[in-house]
Amino acid sequence: MRPRIGILGGMGPAATILLQQRILDAVPVKGDSDHIPLLIDMNPQVPSRIDYLIHHEGRNPGPVLAEMAKGLEARGADALVMPCNTAHHFASYIEDATSVPFLNMVELSAAELAKHAPKRGRVGVLASPATETVGLFHSAFQAAGLTASYPENSAQMLHAIEDIKANGPSEQNISVVQATMENLCRDGVDAFLVGCSEFSLVARELTSSVPIIDALDVLTDAIRQFHRPALNKTPS
Amino acid sequence: MRPRIGILGGMGPAATILLQQRILDAVPVKGDSDHIPLLIDMNPQVPSRIDYLIHHEGRNPGPVLAEMAKGLEARGADALVMPCNTAHHFASYIEDATSVPFLNMVELSAAELAKHAPKRGRVGVLASPATETVGLFHSAFQAAGLTASYPENSAQMLHAIEDIKANGPSEQNISVVQATMENLCRDGVDAFLVGCSEFSLVARELTSSVPIIDALDVLTDAIRQFHRPALNKTPS
Repeated sequence: MRPRIGILGGMGPAATILLQQRILDAVPVKGDSDHIPLLIDMNPQVPSRIDYLIHHEGRNPGPVLAEMAKGLEARGADALVMPCNTAHHFASYIEDATSVPFLNMVELSAAELAKHAPKRGRVGVLASPATETVGLFHSAFQAAGLTASYPENSAQMLHAIEDIKANGPSEQNISVVQATMENLCRDGVDAFLVGCSEFSLVARELTSSVPIIDALDVLTDAIRQFHRPALNKTPS
Repeated sequence: MRPRIGILGGMGPAATILLQQRILDAVPVKGDSDHIPLLIDMNPQVPSRIDYLIHHEGRNPGPVLAEMAKGLEARGADALVMPCNTAHHFASYIEDATSVPFLNMVELSAAELAKHAPKRGRVGVLASPATETVGLFHSAFQAAGLTASYPENSAQMLHAIEDIKANGPSEQNISVVQATMENLCRDGVDAFLVGCSEFSLVARELTSSVPIIDALDVLTDAIRQFHRPALNKTPS
């Protein structure tokens, strides 16, 4: 039996679909059976992470994520992933509830960024303002020798996320993110992290003179490597 | 708790992603929580339906589908669906193993076609040759007062399916399907059924003077309708 990846999804659903598509695109196949098996709990009713962390409203999403993780493990998931950066604030609920590896997108992204930014480099974080409020990337960035720069227009970025969740990607929300990147570049950043899976939905449209690392790509690569350890060792 | 839809997926994975995207697009939302919750077993290692039915090779997919269905029910699925037409030959394995409704894409499609074709109308079936071999659509079409017309170039159609599974949609495989439709039209058909979920991946590119009913659209609509009654009861 091939290793199966359990996905805690639905935060939002479009990003969960995007992760599946990127996994599909990452694996060369001759037919169905070469693809990576996935178990997906697409639960759009996980309590809002942003409401809980920014507005101190609604239920704690942690226990719901723990239940989802336990269910995926019980069904045979050999590793767990969660294509929502902000929800990683509650990663300990998942890790405490299960015994299979949790491929932590935040830690993996910090390690990847360290390859692209100089020591003590500054990373422009394109993410929900909740990630700054709770210092989501702080310890992972510190461990990787990086510092975070956050956008000043946090309300506008939050609105763009909510607009993508409700209406999908648009020229308007892409231009908000692009303008934010240009402001951060003027302040001096060495790389960007696309650290919100709604922004991953528009990441291919973004351009910059510094490297842009999309957390969802980093996660996709970790899934591919978990599934086929041999690929790690494959020389280019 | 909203009704959850269990998806027996991975046959192939791209079609399972397409179904999720169509469900997403079918539901107007203000945010994540308005979306339909899904449990997806994306199992690309289900034994090949085509190998088993056409070439009499490999294992019977039925018991594997029964296990997947049981697992989805155990995790809380309130209804089951399977975005692979050919696999519906094994629907009884799923129905016998579970007690929740199975939204049968073949039966639902026949009922939908009956609205678009005249009594005793002829339906051009764009599907894997295995569906003709086993008479997959026969009883559902008979119940709906329809007859099936199958393409003469069955080997070419099978190759197109395998090519879409391995390499994704292309101009070449779209033109194979389009030319097949024109041949069937010359023989006189009253409607088309896109009865293979790989062809659903290219269905939006196909044109005809007669109605084209995509089984995956019919299934999407059935999922929306199954989910909606609960929404009506939700206190505002």
